[in-house]
Amino acid sequence: MSHQPDERQLSLNAFLHDTGHHEASWRHPESGAERIGDIAWFQDIARKVEAAKLDAVFLADGPAWWGTGHRPSNNFEPITLLTALATVTERIGLISTASTTFYEPFNLARLFASLDRISGGRAGWNIVTTFSEDAAYNFGLDGVPSHEERYARAQDFIDVVTKLWDSWEDDALVVDRESGDYVDTSKVHAIDHVGPYLKVRGPFSAPRTPQGRPVYVQAGSSNEGRAFAARNAEAIFTAHQTIEDARAFYDDIKSKARALGRNPDHVKVRPGISPFIADTTAEAEELSQYFNRLTVPAYGLTQLEKMAGTSLRHLELDERVPVEVFGGAGNVLDNNRSRRQVVANIVERDRPTLRELLHRLAGGRGHNVVAGTPVQVADTIQEWFEGGAADGFNVMPPLYPQLLDAFTGQVVPILQDRGLFRTEYAGTTLREHYGLPRPDSQYADEPALAVGT
Amino acid sequence: MSHQPDERQLSLNAFLHDTGHHEASWRHPESGAERIGDIAWFQDIARKVEAAKLDAVFLADGPAWWGTGHRPSNNFEPITLLTALATVTERIGLISTASTTFYEPFNLARLFASLDRISGGRAGWNIVTTFSEDAAYNFGLDGVPSHEERYARAQDFIDVVTKLWDSWEDDALVVDRESGDYVDTSKVHAIDHVGPYLKVRGPFSAPRTPQGRPVYVQAGSSNEGRAFAARNAEAIFTAHQTIEDARAFYDDIKSKARALGRNPDHVKVRPGISPFIADTTAEAEELSQYFNRLTVPAYGLTQLEKMAGTSLRHLELDERVPVEVFGGAGNVLDNNRSRRQVVANIVERDRPTLRELLHRLAGGRGHNVVAGTPVQVADTIQEWFEGGAADGFNVMPPLYPQLLDAFTGQVVPILQDRGLFRTEYAGTTLREHYGLPRPDSQYADEPALAVGT
Repeated sequence: MSHQPDERQLSLNAFLHDTGHHEASWRHPESGAERIGDIAWFQDIARKVEAAKLDAVFLADGPAWWGTGHRPSNNFEPITLLTALATVTERIGLISTASTTFYEPFNLARLFASLDRISGGRAGWNIVTTFSEDAAYNFGLDGVPSHEERYARAQDFIDVVTKLWDSWEDDALVVDRESGDYVDTSKVHAIDHVGPYLKVRGPFSAPRTPQGRPVYVQAGSSNEGRAFAARNAEAIFTAHQTIEDARAFYDDIKSKARALGRNPDHVKVRPGISPFIADTTAEAEELSQYFNRLTVPAYGLTQLEKMAGTSLRHLELDERVPVEVFGGAGNVLDNNRSRRQVVANIVERDRPTLRELLHRLAGGRGHNVVAGTPVQVADTIQEWFEGGAADGFNVMPPLYPQLLDAFTGQVVPILQDRGLFRTEYAGTTLREHYGLPRPDSQYADEPALAVGT
Repeated sequence: MSHQPDERQLSLNAFLHDTGHHEASWRHPESGAERIGDIAWFQDIARKVEAAKLDAVFLADGPAWWGTGHRPSNNFEPITLLTALATVTERIGLISTASTTFYEPFNLARLFASLDRISGGRAGWNIVTTFSEDAAYNFGLDGVPSHEERYARAQDFIDVVTKLWDSWEDDALVVDRESGDYVDTSKVHAIDHVGPYLKVRGPFSAPRTPQGRPVYVQAGSSNEGRAFAARNAEAIFTAHQTIEDARAFYDDIKSKARALGRNPDHVKVRPGISPFIADTTAEAEELSQYFNRLTVPAYGLTQLEKMAGTSLRHLELDERVPVEVFGGAGNVLDNNRSRRQVVANIVERDRPTLRELLHRLAGGRGHNVVAGTPVQVADTIQEWFEGGAADGFNVMPPLYPQLLDAFTGQVVPILQDRGLFRTEYAGTTLREHYGLPRPDSQYADEPALAVGT
């Protein structure tokens, strides 16, 4: 259990999610179901996460309603939500998901740059291509573009926004009252990007931000997703049920990054973990079962059908799920393949009944749900971290704030005692928390293109 | 000078602008030129504006760099900036400009709804179509669409976002832990919008916000702009140099709104006013001249050339500006006509030299720059307000915060003493400050379209 503080440090994010990550968490008698439209609900949680010295808070997102009456949806747009958290915190990183398929790059670049500036260098961007048909219908499309097309646009998009964020060199501001020169325009560069999907002239509308660029995060586990992550991502959020699966993914990503000439230490892998924590193993198990009993089966079944791409209404709840349901290839697999693979692995390995499968997914939608004592949860984290399966974790409390409090109050101190996790922030930016370098502008030392006077 | 508190009340916004509205304000020895990238700079100003009981702060915006080395550009994206102001204030309205030409409606609807929710109902949207070629180049276009096309898309855009903001009825949330029903899906409506430019299915991703919709503001003064404003706007920001021009505009807008069956009291007209305030008229004039002497003529000339659509480099600074320069019709006039008309009026009426014209525009880019004692400034405001030229003003301090402080500390108390302006907020939302009704959802009492489970 010994671990030197100078060694590689564990990182921990709190994945925010309304009342909690368990789909039935809002039905818990002590849930915040009535408070999640109140920004103070999230500000209180963010302050707790910062007090525990975690690296960041993280928000998933998609531009469409979930279309269910049985669960809260996001009341807030995520970048404005994180901005409201930035103003009441000082150190915690702020990571938002945003879609390269449904945003214009200049608009999104401005939002993240503004968040990075407002927060003093704490912004992260979880880059997604969005496979939701419901989102496509909100943007004038008759369906989601193919997996391949979405990833090709994503690369074009990353290239554009990276150039925009780099387009003002770090020392472009001169602020010389005497001469009347506010900006050294030789240090502000048109980007003149012409790619397969996007044409953007630039330069960006504002000076370079504290981190230069937000931290680039990615969450896809498909082949295209892994290739994209190995090339672009500085942190990867992923879902694995077993240490073996997680290790295989970890090795694959690190070797792909190395093959591309990148430093694999600058591609951090963080699986999700959703911990039910209690004083005894039995109590933790019972807590988990209690939440599962609160589920509305019709809701879980609809979610599962979206992953399967087919109706499952012919199955009885206590009937074993046929392996074939998640086995074949097809259009839906194409658009939703990484999470579907996780479900397929569960079905093949554990042969659950439909009810058991719904319960397995109710907690973390394919992420690793664990139930145990604080020591057991800490042991799992240490085992994955030291066993080559994770650089850190996206912590997904089943119920906010109670099971966040259990994690920060009981598990984090164990990890700190073992020398695995910080007891104080060393830096002020998310890049510093994650041990990532601040990138130089790609335009530094380049001659200027004349764009201004 | 008597005015009953129950009568029509004056409204006052603070138009935020980096170091101030005078183009050379950053060169003032006591300017905040080094602080404008610090969010605390704006938070401090917002707190001052709220302490003075003003209605709102307002931000102009365009998605492109100004392309000049002689003046600061916006460091922040405006909706995130206003979010950061929302969290440190309680009452002040928060109005951001955003472009219907360069945003996707679903994305923009989410940003404003989130701001309205975070601020507890204080969001306003200044709807612009954006005539900047530089902006077009940042969005894959080879030029700005025509005036007519931009306004046609703007109407389509307004229709979409209004439907989205209305798509959750106010009582759609039920939060029934027992039954497992969080949302009454019969009160969440697909919008199924198919317009000339936009196709959006909806419903919106989140419940209805405190104000139902942000306050709709508009700032164009061209014929298309006025027609659009009369149909859609609840507040109009405008630029006039004389009370006669302002009164003609005021009458025109109110009669157009009346002709469309709208209550003209729900279309508030607010010209800009940029006040230099000092103890004597002579000192105020000298203060104004001091700022003008700080200007960089090359900067002002470039801005003027953009409005004129032609080079003015052949003119001497002390030569009278020929009337023809701003008289003709053409493409640039088409794209930039309302502000150009203001300049044309100045040139025809006052026959300034080029230097004098540059100085006239340096303060407020065509808005009304006044120099006087606190009583004189208050008199002007009262004269316009009672003389049928204005329902309120967009106050544009030449230098922040000093000339804001002069306005709030010396002019506002006079207006309060005269019963023209509030001494305490009566409501909490921007709609309440402006005396505007909260709109019902257009879907209330409509049968639901099945979109969820």
